[in-house]
Amino acid sequence: MATDQKFKYFVITYPQEYVAHVEINRPDKMNAFHEEMWLEMRTVFDLLSTSSSVRAIVLSGAGEKAFTTGLDVKAASQGILFSPSDSDTARHATTLRRHIVEFQDCISAIERCEKPVIAAIHGYALGLAVDIATAADVRLSAADTRFAVKEVDIGLAADIGTLSRLPKVVGNYGWVKDVALTARIFGAEEALRVGLVSGVYENKEKTVKAALDLAALIASKSPVAVQGTKELLNWSRDHSVQDGLRYTGVWNSAALQTNDIQSAIFSQMQKKKPTFEKL
Amino acid sequence: MATDQKFKYFVITYPQEYVAHVEINRPDKMNAFHEEMWLEMRTVFDLLSTSSSVRAIVLSGAGEKAFTTGLDVKAASQGILFSPSDSDTARHATTLRRHIVEFQDCISAIERCEKPVIAAIHGYALGLAVDIATAADVRLSAADTRFAVKEVDIGLAADIGTLSRLPKVVGNYGWVKDVALTARIFGAEEALRVGLVSGVYENKEKTVKAALDLAALIASKSPVAVQGTKELLNWSRDHSVQDGLRYTGVWNSAALQTNDIQSAIFSQMQKKKPTFEKL
Amino acid sequence: MATDQKFKYFVITYPQEYVAHVEINRPDKMNAFHEEMWLEMRTVFDLLSTSSSVRAIVLSGAGEKAFTTGLDVKAASQGILFSPSDSDTARHATTLRRHIVEFQDCISAIERCEKPVIAAIHGYALGLAVDIATAADVRLSAADTRFAVKEVDIGLAADIGTLSRLPKVVGNYGWVKDVALTARIFGAEEALRVGLVSGVYENKEKTVKAALDLAALIASKSPVAVQGTKELLNWSRDHSVQDGLRYTGVWNSAALQTNDIQSAIFSQMQKKKPTFEKL
Amino acid sequence: MATDQKFKYFVITYPQEYVAHVEINRPDKMNAFHEEMWLEMRTVFDLLSTSSSVRAIVLSGAGEKAFTTGLDVKAASQGILFSPSDSDTARHATTLRRHIVEFQDCISAIERCEKPVIAAIHGYALGLAVDIATAADVRLSAADTRFAVKEVDIGLAADIGTLSRLPKVVGNYGWVKDVALTARIFGAEEALRVGLVSGVYENKEKTVKAALDLAALIASKSPVAVQGTKELLNWSRDHSVQDGLRYTGVWNSAALQTNDIQSAIFSQMQKKKPTFEKL
Amino acid sequence: MATDQKFKYFVITYPQEYVAHVEINRPDKMNAFHEEMWLEMRTVFDLLSTSSSVRAIVLSGAGEKAFTTGLDVKAASQGILFSPSDSDTARHATTLRRHIVEFQDCISAIERCEKPVIAAIHGYALGLAVDIATAADVRLSAADTRFAVKEVDIGLAADIGTLSRLPKVVGNYGWVKDVALTARIFGAEEALRVGLVSGVYENKEKTVKAALDLAALIASKSPVAVQGTKELLNWSRDHSVQDGLRYTGVWNSAALQTNDIQSAIFSQMQKKKPTFEKL
Amino acid sequence: MATDQKFKYFVITYPQEYVAHVEINRPDKMNAFHEEMWLEMRTVFDLLSTSSSVRAIVLSGAGEKAFTTGLDVKAASQGILFSPSDSDTARHATTLRRHIVEFQDCISAIERCEKPVIAAIHGYALGLAVDIATAADVRLSAADTRFAVKEVDIGLAADIGTLSRLPKVVGNYGWVKDVALTARIFGAEEALRVGLVSGVYENKEKTVKAALDLAALIASKSPVAVQGTKELLNWSRDHSVQDGLRYTGVWNSAALQTNDIQSAIFSQMQKKKPTFEKL
Repeated sequence: MATDQKFKYFVITYPQEYVAHVEINRPDKMNAFHEEMWLEMRTVFDLLSTSSSVRAIVLSGAGEKAFTTGLDVKAASQGILFSPSDSDTARHATTLRRHIVEFQDCISAIERCEKPVIAAIHGYALGLAVDIATAADVRLSAADTRFAVKEVDIGLAADIGTLSRLPKVVGNYGWVKDVALTARIFGAEEALRVGLVSGVYENKEKTVKAALDLAALIASKSPVAVQGTKELLNWSRDHSVQDGLRYTGVWNSAALQTNDIQSAIFSQMQKKKPTFEKL
Repeated sequence: MATDQKFKYFVITYPQEYVAHVEINRPDKMNAFHEEMWLEMRTVFDLLSTSSSVRAIVLSGAGEKAFTTGLDVKAASQGILFSPSDSDTARHATTLRRHIVEFQDCISAIERCEKPVIAAIHGYALGLAVDIATAADVRLSAADTRFAVKEVDIGLAADIGTLSRLPKVVGNYGWVKDVALTARIFGAEEALRVGLVSGVYENKEKTVKAALDLAALIASKSPVAVQGTKELLNWSRDHSVQDGLRYTGVWNSAALQTNDIQSAIFSQMQKKKPTFEKL
Repeated sequence: MATDQKFKYFVITYPQEYVAHVEINRPDKMNAFHEEMWLEMRTVFDLLSTSSSVRAIVLSGAGEKAFTTGLDVKAASQGILFSPSDSDTARHATTLRRHIVEFQDCISAIERCEKPVIAAIHGYALGLAVDIATAADVRLSAADTRFAVKEVDIGLAADIGTLSRLPKVVGNYGWVKDVALTARIFGAEEALRVGLVSGVYENKEKTVKAALDLAALIASKSPVAVQGTKELLNWSRDHSVQDGLRYTGVWNSAALQTNDIQSAIFSQMQKKKPTFEKL
Repeated sequence: MATDQKFKYFVITYPQEYVAHVEINRPDKMNAFHEEMWLEMRTVFDLLSTSSSVRAIVLSGAGEKAFTTGLDVKAASQGILFSPSDSDTARHATTLRRHIVEFQDCISAIERCEKPVIAAIHGYALGLAVDIATAADVRLSAADTRFAVKEVDIGLAADIGTLSRLPKVVGNYGWVKDVALTARIFGAEEALRVGLVSGVYENKEKTVKAALDLAALIASKSPVAVQGTKELLNWSRDHSVQDGLRYTGVWNSAALQTNDIQSAIFSQMQKKKPTFEKL
Repeated sequence: MATDQKFKYFVITYPQEYVAHVEINRPDKMNAFHEEMWLEMRTVFDLLSTSSSVRAIVLSGAGEKAFTTGLDVKAASQGILFSPSDSDTARHATTLRRHIVEFQDCISAIERCEKPVIAAIHGYALGLAVDIATAADVRLSAADTRFAVKEVDIGLAADIGTLSRLPKVVGNYGWVKDVALTARIFGAEEALRVGLVSGVYENKEKTVKAALDLAALIASKSPVAVQGTKELLNWSRDHSVQDGLRYTGVWNSAALQTNDIQSAIFSQMQKKKPTFEKL
Repeated sequence: MATDQKFKYFVITYPQEYVAHVEINRPDKMNAFHEEMWLEMRTVFDLLSTSSSVRAIVLSGAGEKAFTTGLDVKAASQGILFSPSDSDTARHATTLRRHIVEFQDCISAIERCEKPVIAAIHGYALGLAVDIATAADVRLSAADTRFAVKEVDIGLAADIGTLSRLPKVVGNYGWVKDVALTARIFGAEEALRVGLVSGVYENKEKTVKAALDLAALIASKSPVAVQGTKELLNWSRDHSVQDGLRYTGVWNSAALQTNDIQSAIFSQMQKKKPTFEKL
């Protein structure tokens, strides 16, 4: 098992070898997040990132109603946003900036996790839900999902990742501006059409099933190949093609020395399922 | 009113509070542009950018035939392109470069305008029309629109913004190369499919109506949130995710200190329409 | 003729003025590549790049079965990948890095070729096929094409260009991660939907025909305009909008001094087909 | 004459052909700047930038006491810094940001001026003086100059250019942090040693004389070569070597077609002073 | 007090208000580092970064002999470098990469510490000493310091920061390549001449004294101004001038709303020492 | 021997194990370059780059008078610069651009050469001499060297590398603008003071001797460490510190698996000279 540590707001199960299933577990509050939760989520993904028992991860929300409705506004309203720590504007700005930076870092834990993360989304997926989903590698959705980049409706520009990642996930600034400036709800079909999600399934159960199957498929491949592919795609997003090629060349100068290549090719020839050492 | 200044080639109206409607107004020439026009267009958007009476802008073309057919070739043929200012190639190049830089800057005024700009496009939308449309934030189109990246057909590579912005708007280089290398006409449905436009409407009237409705919706939100969202999305287009997150954190360290957040949340709880101070 | 040099693995024909057709010609091995082939392919594209008799290029695979099945695994298994040149890991890494860099450079020859390259793809298009296709400017596909980013299935992260270029071609990281992490086969319709290809045709013959028609159309335009457009779009992919605008202004300060503009405009007015000097 | 327009705070003279001398002219206030002045300075440099009668510019301060003591604190204390335009922090931040951006743009006019600008510095050169001096191309100093990055002493981080440009001018972050964090006064010899200035002269008169001589020398060269050199060095500062090489190649593809090359070489062979057409 | 937490390898004292003095405290081993030490050093600087009782930090080495001789080679030789965790090259590479990334992050804690850090260096300053020193903001040196970028002498390229930061600290690649490729010892005078250190003092005691005085001077300034200056200079190092100006404008839109500006100006007029609120 | 291939304009000798000495060998023409020469120089450095018998390279000019006086103006005046290949400006620009790109690539061969290159400079070092010298890693100079960035004196902006590399070598834009805008001669002492050269020696003989000694010293170190150090420093020049750290971590994940580390440490303990396998 990757970790037998218990968490307050997250449940981790291992439905099959090398696959971890992380559930956001505050269903009575529609999985709304407060600070303790996002700090815990960072711990979860930092642990799984280097666990050699895990090769692919599914992230979903507990309960029938929501992946997550985003920020727990009630909790937030008791936090620093509404209770300036300081009467000096610049000092309060410092407090806010530190807060945002740490909050962002907790969500980025999903992106920097060395293993692919598949988000299985259903029900309400508002605000922070999109920050989280776009930090994952692949997104699958139930037919009933109601997405929204909700932040402008509470008077702020989304600052935990959506405005940086969503346009790069879907590759279309026009659509992103539409949904980010209006905060309108959009459904699974629209998300599929613009490429925010890669598949739409009948309901939550089937979505999670599809995500677990995808995770199992990925987990059956060489972890050297899979984890390298995630890293190189994340690098390429933020660099020129030339810097991408160069970084790739350096990366693979070590990675190609793996035994996994021989195992994979040999297994294919033998029509057997390859096995790969832990990583 | 944002400005009661009158313009020769642009008509500005205020169909409702906080919404400006800018019309390119040279319908007898299918709204073709000459230098005086693009200089004037820069003045229009620079003014609206900081006008506290405006929160969203619709840009459309007067007349039934065209959003704009692009460059007024007849006017251009009397300009520096065809009448070298200088017999020395390098000196003529300097004149051309200065000309291009200023021309580009006039179109970029739409992008750097602090308020979201929605282009409502109909009829012919050729050449410069695409430069202008891609500098806007959201594009809506009438069913009859005939788009073309027309420049190669007059012997030049588009240089006023299309080649820089169009691929980032639609996120697909294959399609952009196809239309930019062939200069072929494409219609509203194709534009919708690739994501160049966000919606297609029956005719010009309904397109402008939809754009005004969208503008009104955006104008009803917190201007601190809306203008921050536009700025952060434009920044993210040209930077890595990490630089996006960092810039966002600094931006919001001031923006989160707005009263709009309390207003927005309080109004939601009260199920009332919030009002926000001028910005 | 652009070149009458003969090649061992590539056939070059000139189906019409200014159009070159390059065929990968190892049909008995499903056009699988070994080192001698990719070195030769670089020579081919470097030659065509500056040949004034060529204005557009079609690249396809000989035979009915495959555009290319990618790396010739049998040949590769006798190469450096499997026969470490050195027992010292760092030294072997140096050998591998040099090998990857040269391999990448051979594929990049398609991208840096000054003339637009249209890939006409059919049958199997696996692994290296995607590296090659994404280095081209436009991709057309037969209905039967079976694409796959196959590399993880042989234990490695794709390192010859796919992970750097594919996401920028299609503009959607979610879909790219899906196909790159699973190595699953996908068909022409899916490729069309995500924008990897610009058109799908009934069979190989019709695909090549469509590619040649597209090449002929592009070749009928001003080569100054067409080649500038390719260059500026490639530059814009890797730079901010502002750097794109600036580079474009400098580029066109020379390019706008071409006679092609007058020729193009004059021919349009005369409704004649323009002719342009060699470039 | 480049311009016979008169300015309130700047005196422009033409001590010799192609050389303009701009003096900051508010000696009774030690050339301290208020808003009207920096707006005017932008106009001055924008005019000179494209004047074909000017090939090099010297910038100095009138009076014996100071190049400039920087911001006119008294004027500033009546401005927006001390009189919040708005009680809402985010709205006041918007006002401040617009103010800073315009202020920065006025100083950047020196950098984007197409002609080389030589700053001749003497006496007090505090705060804004360093922003201005680092936007120039070359700096000469009188022996008595007292420099300081003064901003932290009035409670703020320098925001008009010093923190962005000074480290790139001198290339040494350690020294820059020392002077920027302590706001300490440093003299001409130290400025010379770290490379902030290129020469130190006995007094103001000799400094201005040396600057004018340098300007005259530069003005005697091909303006195509000189202005290209300034542009390419500014570009290289903000880009990788590879992007520098590529931009240079595109720039010179037009610039090398100048007649100035033949003139220059022919004059050298004839040992005559070349003359170059206006630019 | 910033922290009364005790550390095993670091001693923190507060010689005067707002100044922290951190000593590397393993003098019997010439302050050589092993993993536990660099992990602890990260904790120290992360704590001081946000402590409102600290405004400037001095970092020095305990004992007379060395700032630090760098990596404790004996400890290292029992670590992962010499005891491959895995027989598979790619898997061992993963372990090494994770190790390097964490090690780098511990040193980067000095750079990201919001308060200026002044390194007071004496005696041996080898290998890791240079990684640490270049992550600080200002460096002062005793006359007897013996610096070396020692890594090539033990068969590796420096990977904890020196190769990334040293050239940007001194701004001269020629000298950096000389010392990094030869691993030769260089003294304080040479370090001063190239700008690696800002001052050279007779012995360790006087160096630490000078560093503490400098820290005290910085600590007497507005912490809003000082910490903003550090952040903006670090940002500018890695970005273009334009991105520097823009980030600065956004940063100061909050920071200029501080009361420190009025306090600073008022105190200056009153010739009194200003006091500033905690930050 | 690295290569026993003979060259027309370059002499390669091997004064000691692992050290190659490349002489520019056209002393009767003061080593002035024409096209055949720079093409040959690329071949020389591409060969040495991967030769396992070479670990450090010295580059000097034959004869007493000059390292090189730069471009052979007489040869150039018969080339494309003066004999436009085409009457169409844009087409001639294309020819020039291709010419510049190839010329730049020949000089960049020195920079991309995997082994450190030390330039030993004497006598005249004009124009192209500076392009070449700044592509090297370390520069040593005889006392009599007369440097000049000569290009503006022949009517053009330097385009083969100087404007991109010189400011990054010396880290001081003010001085670079001075010498690049005036084309003035400067001597070895000034070059030393600004950091263009790392040492000045009495005459050519002693300079070459010092360069060979330096090369020998470098050649005695682990080639894995040395070549990694060159690569990482070149990368860091063009990237942010963060990208530098990350690239370094990936690079060393393979490089640290070398046996050289054990050899180096063991030899040090034994006070013996280590030997390293070929690379």
